[in-house]
Amino acid sequence: MEKMNVQPATGKLGVLCVGLGAVATTFMTGVLMVRKGLAKPVGSMTQYDKIRVGRGAEKKYLHYHEIVPMAELKDIVFGAWDVYPANAYESAINCEVLKEKDINPVKDELEKIVPMKAAFDRDYAKRLEGDNVKDCATRWDMVEALRKDIRDFKEANGCSRIVVLWAASTEIYVPVCEEVHGTLAALEQAMKEDDRRHVAPSMCYAYAALAEGAPFIMGAPNTTVDIPAMWEMAEKTRMPIAGKDFKTGQTLVKSGFAPIIGTRCLGLSGWFSTNILGNRDGLVLDEPANFHTKEVSKLSTLESILVPENQPDLYTDYYHKVRINYYPPRNDNKEGWDNIDIFGWMGYPMQIKINFLCRDSILAAPLCLDLVLLSDLAARAGRYGIQRFLSFFLKSPMHDYTQDEVPVNHLFQQYVMLKNAIREMGGYEADEEID
Amino acid sequence: MEKMNVQPATGKLGVLCVGLGAVATTFMTGVLMVRKGLAKPVGSMTQYDKIRVGRGAEKKYLHYHEIVPMAELKDIVFGAWDVYPANAYESAINCEVLKEKDINPVKDELEKIVPMKAAFDRDYAKRLEGDNVKDCATRWDMVEALRKDIRDFKEANGCSRIVVLWAASTEIYVPVCEEVHGTLAALEQAMKEDDRRHVAPSMCYAYAALAEGAPFIMGAPNTTVDIPAMWEMAEKTRMPIAGKDFKTGQTLVKSGFAPIIGTRCLGLSGWFSTNILGNRDGLVLDEPANFHTKEVSKLSTLESILVPENQPDLYTDYYHKVRINYYPPRNDNKEGWDNIDIFGWMGYPMQIKINFLCRDSILAAPLCLDLVLLSDLAARAGRYGIQRFLSFFLKSPMHDYTQDEVPVNHLFQQYVMLKNAIREMGGYEADEEID
Amino acid sequence: MEKMNVQPATGKLGVLCVGLGAVATTFMTGVLMVRKGLAKPVGSMTQYDKIRVGRGAEKKYLHYHEIVPMAELKDIVFGAWDVYPANAYESAINCEVLKEKDINPVKDELEKIVPMKAAFDRDYAKRLEGDNVKDCATRWDMVEALRKDIRDFKEANGCSRIVVLWAASTEIYVPVCEEVHGTLAALEQAMKEDDRRHVAPSMCYAYAALAEGAPFIMGAPNTTVDIPAMWEMAEKTRMPIAGKDFKTGQTLVKSGFAPIIGTRCLGLSGWFSTNILGNRDGLVLDEPANFHTKEVSKLSTLESILVPENQPDLYTDYYHKVRINYYPPRNDNKEGWDNIDIFGWMGYPMQIKINFLCRDSILAAPLCLDLVLLSDLAARAGRYGIQRFLSFFLKSPMHDYTQDEVPVNHLFQQYVMLKNAIREMGGYEADEEID
Amino acid sequence: MEKMNVQPATGKLGVLCVGLGAVATTFMTGVLMVRKGLAKPVGSMTQYDKIRVGRGAEKKYLHYHEIVPMAELKDIVFGAWDVYPANAYESAINCEVLKEKDINPVKDELEKIVPMKAAFDRDYAKRLEGDNVKDCATRWDMVEALRKDIRDFKEANGCSRIVVLWAASTEIYVPVCEEVHGTLAALEQAMKEDDRRHVAPSMCYAYAALAEGAPFIMGAPNTTVDIPAMWEMAEKTRMPIAGKDFKTGQTLVKSGFAPIIGTRCLGLSGWFSTNILGNRDGLVLDEPANFHTKEVSKLSTLESILVPENQPDLYTDYYHKVRINYYPPRNDNKEGWDNIDIFGWMGYPMQIKINFLCRDSILAAPLCLDLVLLSDLAARAGRYGIQRFLSFFLKSPMHDYTQDEVPVNHLFQQYVMLKNAIREMGGYEADEEID
Repeated sequence: MEKMNVQPATGKLGVLCVGLGAVATTFMTGVLMVRKGLAKPVGSMTQYDKIRVGRGAEKKYLHYHEIVPMAELKDIVFGAWDVYPANAYESAINCEVLKEKDINPVKDELEKIVPMKAAFDRDYAKRLEGDNVKDCATRWDMVEALRKDIRDFKEANGCSRIVVLWAASTEIYVPVCEEVHGTLAALEQAMKEDDRRHVAPSMCYAYAALAEGAPFIMGAPNTTVDIPAMWEMAEKTRMPIAGKDFKTGQTLVKSGFAPIIGTRCLGLSGWFSTNILGNRDGLVLDEPANFHTKEVSKLSTLESILVPENQPDLYTDYYHKVRINYYPPRNDNKEGWDNIDIFGWMGYPMQIKINFLCRDSILAAPLCLDLVLLSDLAARAGRYGIQRFLSFFLKSPMHDYTQDEVPVNHLFQQYVMLKNAIREMGGYEADEEID
Repeated sequence: MEKMNVQPATGKLGVLCVGLGAVATTFMTGVLMVRKGLAKPVGSMTQYDKIRVGRGAEKKYLHYHEIVPMAELKDIVFGAWDVYPANAYESAINCEVLKEKDINPVKDELEKIVPMKAAFDRDYAKRLEGDNVKDCATRWDMVEALRKDIRDFKEANGCSRIVVLWAASTEIYVPVCEEVHGTLAALEQAMKEDDRRHVAPSMCYAYAALAEGAPFIMGAPNTTVDIPAMWEMAEKTRMPIAGKDFKTGQTLVKSGFAPIIGTRCLGLSGWFSTNILGNRDGLVLDEPANFHTKEVSKLSTLESILVPENQPDLYTDYYHKVRINYYPPRNDNKEGWDNIDIFGWMGYPMQIKINFLCRDSILAAPLCLDLVLLSDLAARAGRYGIQRFLSFFLKSPMHDYTQDEVPVNHLFQQYVMLKNAIREMGGYEADEEID
Repeated sequence: MEKMNVQPATGKLGVLCVGLGAVATTFMTGVLMVRKGLAKPVGSMTQYDKIRVGRGAEKKYLHYHEIVPMAELKDIVFGAWDVYPANAYESAINCEVLKEKDINPVKDELEKIVPMKAAFDRDYAKRLEGDNVKDCATRWDMVEALRKDIRDFKEANGCSRIVVLWAASTEIYVPVCEEVHGTLAALEQAMKEDDRRHVAPSMCYAYAALAEGAPFIMGAPNTTVDIPAMWEMAEKTRMPIAGKDFKTGQTLVKSGFAPIIGTRCLGLSGWFSTNILGNRDGLVLDEPANFHTKEVSKLSTLESILVPENQPDLYTDYYHKVRINYYPPRNDNKEGWDNIDIFGWMGYPMQIKINFLCRDSILAAPLCLDLVLLSDLAARAGRYGIQRFLSFFLKSPMHDYTQDEVPVNHLFQQYVMLKNAIREMGGYEADEEID
Repeated sequence: MEKMNVQPATGKLGVLCVGLGAVATTFMTGVLMVRKGLAKPVGSMTQYDKIRVGRGAEKKYLHYHEIVPMAELKDIVFGAWDVYPANAYESAINCEVLKEKDINPVKDELEKIVPMKAAFDRDYAKRLEGDNVKDCATRWDMVEALRKDIRDFKEANGCSRIVVLWAASTEIYVPVCEEVHGTLAALEQAMKEDDRRHVAPSMCYAYAALAEGAPFIMGAPNTTVDIPAMWEMAEKTRMPIAGKDFKTGQTLVKSGFAPIIGTRCLGLSGWFSTNILGNRDGLVLDEPANFHTKEVSKLSTLESILVPENQPDLYTDYYHKVRINYYPPRNDNKEGWDNIDIFGWMGYPMQIKINFLCRDSILAAPLCLDLVLLSDLAARAGRYGIQRFLSFFLKSPMHDYTQDEVPVNHLFQQYVMLKNAIREMGGYEADEEID
């Protein structure tokens, strides 16, 4: 098979985070610490995973960077926008995710990451109160201001490439409106007319990124790039888009555990998932309008793994419920509790309970790194539009629903998709099928 | 690809269970109930699973029996040996695994399954006290008596084929002794000399089965067929052997959950597994000598999935401990509690706790059915010796350790092996590799 | 101390249940089975508990019936109202709480318990759809119809005494309205004027019971008898009232576990309680208006046990959250999951998680029996109005909040109150204080 | 009631810890930090609890020090013996129980606490390897050397009183031998004859303490002071003794939770307790001989709270099992998992699972403080011998088994005993009875 034409990863890679809270600062601190040899980037596929390429006698196991040209950690430059003015050092300390001894060695570098003013609309996140906010007359003004930010950052830091990553809170639910979101022209029109109901601030970030030739990654469950208008924009700018919602705690477990049940042909009668978390994300999600965005994202996982049509005896009418609760005593330490009611031989019931004491930002940080590096790779490989191969990292993977394309939520199928994409970009044969 | 020459599954299939306790009677009752349309064989791959065959436009999803000739449930005839004289109906009622309403409709058929006298040695299971036991001078006499049982059963029931399945308790640990277990000749010699220390009763069952042209399946962790002498016997008789230890509760979860951690490149610092169960198996395992057999079987699972050599940052020096506790209040309802200590980004620790309220026999019964039907298939396909493709169903899958062959414990890799074997026997192309 | 003048428990005791669902039929079936010597009334204080009376050399441990005259199980006659017409046998079978073998021996007696038409208003329980309902023009008509039911039942069954027990669902939340609920006259006025917003159907049952000289017990969290008007009615009729909300699963644990924390002077930073249940009660509570009634009842428990004012270092600002989720796969088997964040020496955090796999009706049934028998005792002892000594059995114990009386939620303090009342009615000295 | 003659707490109180590991250093660090106002002594009854004294109009709630003369924290001087030579600062850092920021403010004081050489015998704790050990020819020499240590410490630090507290590991099980342990004379004889099998090193510490007029507290499950010989010694020296085994995690929960079950007359069919811990104590307890000492201590708890004789329907034949597992990934963070099988109305089963993520030393430290201060109080009040009122703090409370005295394990009965003793020493009336 012929090697694909992937551009080399030369020059600096600017990484602009929307939101400079727990996730972004944990990501940044970790990268800076790893660069100094003071920490390990555990959980990152691009830094650890090895995949098989070749077959039979040719078979070998290689790291991603041995197969395709990846940007190196040393070439990353960080920037951010946030509604609060605290710099990355102050914010990392405030978030209390990392111990001070794991932050202080890169204090100087973090202090230099001062957030630009955010493009913000309080109607989209009622519980946030920062005032480091742009003053924009219309959504289109927001776009213009953000584009200028990106250009200025790129120039000031001598970056050859930029990636924009949404690492901020969940906005309120914006249902897809065909009229406004159906075409790029309509969306641009709505931005100009300042249609605040249909154009979320996050859409302005995405549009600005793409317009400036930067891939855009949606780490929250917002529908931002999950609309035909953005797909058109991505195609027009030949840029990758990826989303949505980092697959961190409970959904990671669900997308990995449901396949166990399905593979063994055990039945399912119910799955109840509850979550407690106390960080800013938890606070925002305590608002029903914001939670709805998340709920839609979380519920779909199971339904596409255990499919009633394929096994009606086993998966018809199971009851699936997801709850998220704001619980301040835990801060960033999220805790998930899943109760799974299965049945076996002759229909006899059994129960599985999974209690996950996880750390939101610790799980999200390596996803940030991988999504950034792999989006940059995709851009250099000329892969634009929806990046299905990144489904592995996402709770609610993008898919072209207008073409009845179904999302892939099965963790191990997602992993095959990821490996195949790397193989293909590296000029190796992909495994043709994933099941 | 050419269709393999698999003999058709014509005539009756005799299924002889060693042990007529909870597992065997749940298996039998279920099959009889399913045959009458009164229950569903949930958890059985041969009855439910569909696998892809063909590629691209040729791709289709078929049940196993649509790919290869499988024995049908209606053709099964059950027999058993046990140290207790209770028939299958009485035993099913005593075990209290199934509700009476799920047993009574097949009471007549179950009552006819009266156990033959067992080949037994109390030194191998101190806590069992039945006296429905053969009187044999030597191990070789045991073999002769069991072979006669098999021939008599086959003739009396007009069976064309027999499979022998060990569904009895765990024997005490018999370490592999090269001198005695290394060759078939040495083993036969030891049987004749009545070397009780090296020849477990289970070995007499296995030898007798193979000698009579029947596949043998080891459902407990006994090393019975896990020795070169038996491999030689299987080769000589051209019969399949499979083992060892039904993969039911906690190990099923472990072999499915560990891949989640490994796939996401998360680190592992410890895994503690404890179990409470109150059935006869639990009683036997409370004896340290018997537990040791089980422990060896259970510990290996993890080590072959999360491999320190491949990812030293992530899997070096994790602490793995397995405990089984006899706890009568639960009877056959086993409960597993796993505590998993993982670490993520920058080494930060997280915990996952899995509490599995399972039912031992309910999980084992479909494995019995699948192992029986697939061993019979393998025999008809001329596949003899160790059946690696059955690893999916087993806690401690057999492998030729004298050739440094490593066992496959990863649930999803085992599944690929299973599917590939079915595809190959059906004349379809296998997926060449499993990772 | 002089023996109190308690009337003997001669004649039949009519027990009229509002609601003939899972709780009522489990209660009735159990009493009938116990009467035949076929079951044990486990969980019932009146049937099992022994309390100390006397001191020093005089000290002895006696059952309640050895101290005071208690009605005997053989003298109980059951009746009921329900919106569904199924008799007690049909309902017990439908509810699937008890196994058929535990119901069938008393089938004849249960079949004779046919529910009278209920006094019902769908605005108070939107998810219930039965039509075995009285046709009443006004709330006052409801009262009149119910009073007639009680009189008819009493006469038909030759009862000397009646107790009315609410064992039905939670109504929507009715906040106490001083104008309507403040005096008996105002309440009667509102009933006559058919003020449906302020007069819940449950108030008609309570009023009718008291008017007919029967104690009334509120087993749901409804505020029915928790208003000054009803206290006045109880005083006027010299009848006991008790409530509210049977203390079954999670609150039982909370009221027993919080004292462990408090007694050892450990700190509390948060307590998160979630519940899944699938019975009719769960369905009703999935409606936010009904849940609110429950939430108010459940939250108060903790606050009165761990009091910030007494130990500001330990109990200031803890976060307490209660969630109930309808989850049909479980039916009557409720499951509670509590996460308790405590802190110890130097403020270091620890966590306790309690997972309670309980059965709602199995826990409620003995409470029904005890509340009925002890209310009847109280009536015979001339104790009328709020029965604080019954707090032990109730999630949200009644107390005269107009006098700033505080409820007692501490399980062991409630137990002392219960014992003291029995002692006093039996003419023994009470322990003067409870802490 | 007349005020008892309790000597005032004037002068310095020397606290000598046997063992300068996690428990002792957490205790010391905390006391020093609290003294500086930098931490709170959460979990300490002597510092937080208030108890009622007086009745009726006289009733008031007072701290212990308002009722009886208590030593103040500022008057405490610490010393220790240990087999490792690390000082208290080094040891506190190594143990990793407390964060460095909670240790450093008292670094100077901690560094001055340098352990004296331990009286040690490796046969009693095979897994410990330190060599800061006394060289003694006989057990009697050990006693003499320890007595000298105590005298020297007292003089060097100008202490008016000393308390000796065992905060070291569990020794191997020493069954009570009537011949050797039955009288003081016999014990002294055995010490002089160097009977190492019957005289544990801990007995030398206890004997030395009492001989020097210091109360002795046994914090591990060793039988040290649980023998008639020591009772005689305590009587002879008129000194208090207390033990055994700090009631920290799982047993604390058990002694508090079992009363909930018993009080509500629910039945019990089984209680399974397992524990994982990774500190030095866990390592020692992984040795079967040492675990046996612990097991005996832990099992008795339940049996004396839920008594079969009193409620045969409810508590006959329940199955109780306790397991402790060394699990290094957790270090000092112990985790307990209890599974409790209860039954209710008509015998229907339910389950409660308690998962306690606790910290061994954080829970033990306030017990150390309370036991030290209250033993000192007892000595000043002239209460000598077994101190039953300290049962509240201990897993396996001492009691005179030669007189058929039963231990009190019920947390709330223990609490009443504690309060009564304080009341009595303060000249207030005790509540006469505890149940």
